[in-house]
Amino acid sequence: MPSRRRRLLSPHHRLASPPLSLATQRLGTSRRSRINGGWRRRKWLDGGDAAAAGKPLPPCCVKARAAAPESEAKCHATVVSGWFTEPRSRGGKTSKVQYYNNPMWPGEAHSLKVEKILYQGKSPYQEVLVFESSTYGKVLVLDGIVQLTDKDECAYQEMITHLPLCSIPSPKKVLVIGGGDGGVLREICRHGSVESIDICEIDQLVIDVCKDFFPDLAVGFKDPRVRLHVGDAVEFLRNAPEGTYDAIIVDSSDPIGPAQELVEKPFFDTIARALRPGGVLCNQAESMWLHTHLIQDMLSICRETFKGSVHYAWTSVPTYPSGVIGFLLCAKEGPPVNFLIPANPIEKLEGAMEAGREIRFYNSEMHRAAFVLPTFARKELEAYCTTTENEQPEETAAEPLKIAIMPNSEILTAS
Amino acid sequence: MPSRRRRLLSPHHRLASPPLSLATQRLGTSRRSRINGGWRRRKWLDGGDAAAAGKPLPPCCVKARAAAPESEAKCHATVVSGWFTEPRSRGGKTSKVQYYNNPMWPGEAHSLKVEKILYQGKSPYQEVLVFESSTYGKVLVLDGIVQLTDKDECAYQEMITHLPLCSIPSPKKVLVIGGGDGGVLREICRHGSVESIDICEIDQLVIDVCKDFFPDLAVGFKDPRVRLHVGDAVEFLRNAPEGTYDAIIVDSSDPIGPAQELVEKPFFDTIARALRPGGVLCNQAESMWLHTHLIQDMLSICRETFKGSVHYAWTSVPTYPSGVIGFLLCAKEGPPVNFLIPANPIEKLEGAMEAGREIRFYNSEMHRAAFVLPTFARKELEAYCTTTENEQPEETAAEPLKIAIMPNSEILTAS
Repeated sequence: MPSRRRRLLSPHHRLASPPLSLATQRLGTSRRSRINGGWRRRKWLDGGDAAAAGKPLPPCCVKARAAAPESEAKCHATVVSGWFTEPRSRGGKTSKVQYYNNPMWPGEAHSLKVEKILYQGKSPYQEVLVFESSTYGKVLVLDGIVQLTDKDECAYQEMITHLPLCSIPSPKKVLVIGGGDGGVLREICRHGSVESIDICEIDQLVIDVCKDFFPDLAVGFKDPRVRLHVGDAVEFLRNAPEGTYDAIIVDSSDPIGPAQELVEKPFFDTIARALRPGGVLCNQAESMWLHTHLIQDMLSICRETFKGSVHYAWTSVPTYPSGVIGFLLCAKEGPPVNFLIPANPIEKLEGAMEAGREIRFYNSEMHRAAFVLPTFARKELEAYCTTTENEQPEETAAEPLKIAIMPNSEILTAS
Repeated sequence: MPSRRRRLLSPHHRLASPPLSLATQRLGTSRRSRINGGWRRRKWLDGGDAAAAGKPLPPCCVKARAAAPESEAKCHATVVSGWFTEPRSRGGKTSKVQYYNNPMWPGEAHSLKVEKILYQGKSPYQEVLVFESSTYGKVLVLDGIVQLTDKDECAYQEMITHLPLCSIPSPKKVLVIGGGDGGVLREICRHGSVESIDICEIDQLVIDVCKDFFPDLAVGFKDPRVRLHVGDAVEFLRNAPEGTYDAIIVDSSDPIGPAQELVEKPFFDTIARALRPGGVLCNQAESMWLHTHLIQDMLSICRETFKGSVHYAWTSVPTYPSGVIGFLLCAKEGPPVNFLIPANPIEKLEGAMEAGREIRFYNSEMHRAAFVLPTFARKELEAYCTTTENEQPEETAAEPLKIAIMPNSEILTAS
């Protein structure tokens, strides 16, 4: 999981980013964006229609622009935007408090109380911090952004894994991009049909730290089906034989700075190439409360790229901004995939519910519920989704909600 | 909505609370508990089995006990637990920041950046604060606890209202307990079948402030069907004729201190008495991430009291602790109520989707999804729910999850 915050690309990728004017760029962002010094960000939408010049910037981009002065500021690595609170004394005791705030969700911050710092270190890619929190168990922080906590990692790891793997029968070859903590591997291993799991993670330090401090996550590395590749994910994908994987899970870094590419069309093209026909992608994809416009762009690119069904799902993760995180589910053209109803229900897989540790969050009903959107998100996102012929909207006693279809859309909207 | 944080009872109720030892009590709590000076809390479970002496305190109660020293501390009204950050200067500008933390969700805090204080005042019951936040619009704070924000109030108001009102055909008489901001009234008014709406709110100041600063919420007071009663909700309920209401919505204060009664069996008995047979209650009911044990107790009491179906539902509200809030849905013995599938779908009610302002969050699929629980919550809560005969579990391609039924349970668990 942590690697979605981590740089997945080699440092030389930095140089590939041409500086663009802040006033005209659109920003690729992720749940918890890292602040990348003075690096400029590239326009990341390739082929989208909403980026047309002259249109007013949507609120999420206005938000993103707030990052600019931040990137120049001399901030403590773990705390930004002036909300740092130094450890201070209260009642004679030292109370260590860490505040997390980020220009991608300006004006709000979530804080966790630190009981004990367990590890601090620095890799060529990022700062790594592990602490024991007072109520969320151990916490992994990369470049100042909370990646996971013992208490709620289950929601993220289980959903990002089983949403794709339970949507296709008998997945055999799976690739994880990022995921250096091992949590996604742990979840994939519940699927007995899986024969090989490639994982491409750039930062050996994160793997080592997680093996030391998060054994319940890193247990995923122990499975004999796992092949670890420490390196650049884009490079790895380029070298992967075409049509290799049944499923690719992108547990990826923030698309600001060097990992910018991971939300651009060429990256999704590389993913699509590596998938077999009818293969599926699951990519973490922002909060519907904070960044619907960015999600629209990702959906729009993926509709062009994958041709099969494309959907947005979401789930509750208390320690992520706005308390939710979303997932982009895409099927490559080929045998149709109905993401909305698990074709490969986890409850029917022998031993899957208990493998390693019991399943805490995911179940087949949560799978279906994850695709149900609040009305505001339905209106903003569903027109960007595509539904295959065999996907039936869920039965309901209600009339389908009427949704204005985007003028250029030829898609079906789930009711 | 705010009154769930507000005192609904007259101040004399304070005196009714016998001081109990902290070591033996169980605490009634709510999303954002107020800190009530040195008031002691009463054991609030009446008839529950889990409070048996000698059992180790569950984690949520251990958490609650952390409130004890806090209640003695001299804290700024809006900020507690040592996480107050005074307005401070950064880059030459005054940056006002407010941190919210509460002993009921210790070890974490959510913060909103303040653009401008719009109102500060004090009623006989509580402190009232309204500020413009930088990204969540206007915020209502009572006794230091965020009640609502412009951005996400839709999720709470719409779900607490339509979950009960869409579960029964043609609701006619509705009672709101609390709800002084008018948001729940606004939502009830979408239902053309409703003939009368009683609202019992103790704090006139909150009503007045919301009419001034939250016109989009307080619009609910303008409907001619609304009858406002400013006073003690428990007293009001005692005087209500038996079997009056089709639905009662408790948008209530925190059950610590004087509002303790609102989660005790006698209060639910009074509610049940005021409902017609087959009438329904919707009560805000904590976060499944933070207080499953307290939710278990509420479910347990309500099973005894209402005899009809009893369920727990949840939804996403970013500015509430853990980013979610739950609802207790109970039907009084009588014509069976199937909460899981809307019998009165809002999409079929003429003009309901647009009345006043358009519906932003709720829809019939969100209604159904709200009752789908993550596996951990399913295991911890579903055994405390009751299902009527006409409630069918949702169809799913998956096998039902096997759940250990509590020894004393004769209920069905939804699969």
